Amino acid sequence: MNAPVATHELQAMQRPVSDEFLQALTTRFGTQCSTALAVREQHGRDEGSIAAPPPAAVVFAESTQDVQDAVRLCDQHRVPVIAYGAGSSLEGHLLAVQGGITIDVSRMNQVLSVNTEDLTITVQPGITRKALNDAIKDTGFFFPIDPGADASIGGMTSTRASGTNAVRYGTMRENVLALEVVTANGEVIRTGNRAKKSAAGYDLTRLLVGSEGTLGIFTEITLRIYPLPEAVSAAICSFPSIEAAVHTVIQTIQMGIPIARVELVDVNSVRMVNAYSKLDLREEPMLLMEFHGSPTGVKEQAEMVQDIANEFGGQSFEWAERPEDRTRLFTARHNAYFAAVSSVPGCRCITTDACVPISRLADALLECVTEADASGIPYFLVGHVGDGNFHFGYLIDPDNDAQREQAEQLNHTLVARAIALGGTCTGEHGIGIHKQGFLLEEAGDGAVAMMRAIKQALDPKNILNPGKIFQLQ
Amino acid sequence: MNAPVATHELQAMQRPVSDEFLQALTTRFGTQCSTALAVREQHGRDEGSIAAPPPAAVVFAESTQDVQDAVRLCDQHRVPVIAYGAGSSLEGHLLAVQGGITIDVSRMNQVLSVNTEDLTITVQPGITRKALNDAIKDTGFFFPIDPGADASIGGMTSTRASGTNAVRYGTMRENVLALEVVTANGEVIRTGNRAKKSAAGYDLTRLLVGSEGTLGIFTEITLRIYPLPEAVSAAICSFPSIEAAVHTVIQTIQMGIPIARVELVDVNSVRMVNAYSKLDLREEPMLLMEFHGSPTGVKEQAEMVQDIANEFGGQSFEWAERPEDRTRLFTARHNAYFAAVSSVPGCRCITTDACVPISRLADALLECVTEADASGIPYFLVGHVGDGNFHFGYLIDPDNDAQREQAEQLNHTLVARAIALGGTCTGEHGIGIHKQGFLLEEAGDGAVAMMRAIKQALDPKNILNPGKIFQLQ
Repeated sequence: MNAPVATHELQAMQRPVSDEFLQALTTRFGTQCSTALAVREQHGRDEGSIAAPPPAAVVFAESTQDVQDAVRLCDQHRVPVIAYGAGSSLEGHLLAVQGGITIDVSRMNQVLSVNTEDLTITVQPGITRKALNDAIKDTGFFFPIDPGADASIGGMTSTRASGTNAVRYGTMRENVLALEVVTANGEVIRTGNRAKKSAAGYDLTRLLVGSEGTLGIFTEITLRIYPLPEAVSAAICSFPSIEAAVHTVIQTIQMGIPIARVELVDVNSVRMVNAYSKLDLREEPMLLMEFHGSPTGVKEQAEMVQDIANEFGGQSFEWAERPEDRTRLFTARHNAYFAAVSSVPGCRCITTDACVPISRLADALLECVTEADASGIPYFLVGHVGDGNFHFGYLIDPDNDAQREQAEQLNHTLVARAIALGGTCTGEHGIGIHKQGFLLEEAGDGAVAMMRAIKQALDPKNILNPGKIFQLQ
Repeated sequence: MNAPVATHELQAMQRPVSDEFLQALTTRFGTQCSTALAVREQHGRDEGSIAAPPPAAVVFAESTQDVQDAVRLCDQHRVPVIAYGAGSSLEGHLLAVQGGITIDVSRMNQVLSVNTEDLTITVQPGITRKALNDAIKDTGFFFPIDPGADASIGGMTSTRASGTNAVRYGTMRENVLALEVVTANGEVIRTGNRAKKSAAGYDLTRLLVGSEGTLGIFTEITLRIYPLPEAVSAAICSFPSIEAAVHTVIQTIQMGIPIARVELVDVNSVRMVNAYSKLDLREEPMLLMEFHGSPTGVKEQAEMVQDIANEFGGQSFEWAERPEDRTRLFTARHNAYFAAVSSVPGCRCITTDACVPISRLADALLECVTEADASGIPYFLVGHVGDGNFHFGYLIDPDNDAQREQAEQLNHTLVARAIALGGTCTGEHGIGIHKQGFLLEEAGDGAVAMMRAIKQALDPKNILNPGKIFQLQ
């Protein structure tokens, strides 16, 4: 039901691209268009585990007009077209499974305007989240959404990304205010505006956020930014068990304590991170927390969480007050993936991404831990647990098909459990190719049929990133 | 361009309802179906200023199955169908402009489940916001969204409503987690789930929130609830000018102070409210504020805002510490409309609703105040200014066509200005019939064409609240 698509199936789905089309593309784009195999191959994959033939060409767009012209040509010739930012997606989003071309928007990486009075910023889609924050670091404001990778804002918008700050600041769903979009027929439209709220017609912005390139290609994105908190402090707290850590989080959220980050790191991750980042964290399940606010507020929040942690057997907080210590801790957390992969030489990591109502988090996690332990596959567990979102990473031998199958089975059980507990098959990575079976399980035929009807209405020739999220037939 | 539709035009749009259909409806619903003129007339209007012929029948739904069966009959007979909750919408949303029937969901008013661990509640659409809060008042949690009227949750979801708490807690956009929906062909689907975030496919929930009954009829709604703040305090602060008050708000928001409510009340409103609610508020422009948090946090927030207010010539805060005093103040604010209407015997109030980026709020307001003063029409101005959202109410003589025309012209200028300043023609009331011209101005042909394509795909027979938000041709 959720098996990766075999390469021969992907090849069978390829739609032909005519010489006439490629000629027209080259005429329009000149050196901004490449058909070199290395370039095509680089754009024909993402960080996920599925392989497909590369696109027929890559256009390096430098303006909205470029995107518009490329899409118009694709529309005329019924050629699939995939937008590409940083290549960091995980579920096969960028693969040219039906052939066609890729539009690389990484050169469209400018900040177009910053408005600190309104707490908004307008950027081009190719800018990465780190570059964005670098660009505004002297303004006293920041953009909080931080998936582990240095993803492009366009890609983050397309997958409805989130990360460690989402518990306080929300995800891309809450933080994209407006879009400029090239639609399937090459028209440029705008959705939303810089007003903080609006009741004017269908919420096209929210429909497009998370649509994985299947409804339009973003050329401008207006985001919310936030004042840098007056005070920030980070702490780690070790617990006797994952359950104790999770119950501390549940109670923190339930009391409305505005914690900014609360990350669960299991004992496997702690060991891997210690080795990789040369830290000496206590080798027990751990919460990594950050508090934002006024100096008094931060102190008060931390005291309340410490009290809750004590009830569940948590240790005394260890503080990271200095910015460089905080950065070191959260960098270590963001590097958990690399720490894990380097802990098993030659391995590949199969990463899961489920999210449940927080009251069900302990149930969801503990059974998965038992199963992962029993499998004998090395694994780690991290989670944005304030949101009920967690990731297992299974470290498999890429040449061991049986182990891969076993890891996929663990993932399947994990996701099915999350859905059964009232949760979702993906908290932040998206559906892509890999999770289409899960989407059907989660949303049901009726809701997926509604998505399909929308896709067919807005992209009747099915040229925008076809074959992603759901199958049309 | 935005003139109210004349009644003869609305009559011309009526689609015939066959005796066969009415017979089938009566057979299925018995006493749950009424064709009495008084019942139909009551359901054929809202709080807005447009009149239309009433629906042909009213079905009082008591279950999802009832809604489903009524919609199926409408689908079979191509009969328009309008969902009705509390009747408090303002822009003609509930009017049977193309004939058909109304489904009154006010009997579907149950709380289905409360989950305080996950901060969610699932309700039927007919429950009003006050009834919802009454039902959970002993749990320590509350639902913050509070348009002035005691609207139904279904209606609030349909119009993407907000109110005084939105500056801190967001609008219905941020607070609806999941829906059960009857679609145009009478199918029941579910969108979203109780997980706090999800990246699973198109965000149908957000598409449906604010769709004004044109894409489906809600039968269950899952909302976020919030822990009652440990401490709440409210204060009023008078200012020498609207501008001074607005600049205080801009700076408060920009500094990230998590103020829960900040309402602007102009001097006209203060006078009207004093007379109506027997208060003795200082007759100057005023901010009415509420702070939520820990006792220390609330004190700290208030001190910071007082400092900012001082810079702009604001008076010392007058405090309302006791719950009953706070309630009295905010009730007075919510009653501003009634206070205004009762201040000019026999008048009708034309209410506007625009929202701009907060940096443009002073620009937007001051020119409108000048124009309103020049018009000679009695008016008042209130605003959820933390969001940049404001309402003028023009008190016109209903028999004076020239005055009505003049008020509509003031509204037109006000909205056009808001759009030109990067804002929206409606912050919280929706489009309905009255603002369709404005929606085109704001969103542009391309975006409205996208909305239309979605509507046609999801409701090919155009039976769900037809003629609202936009015209199909």
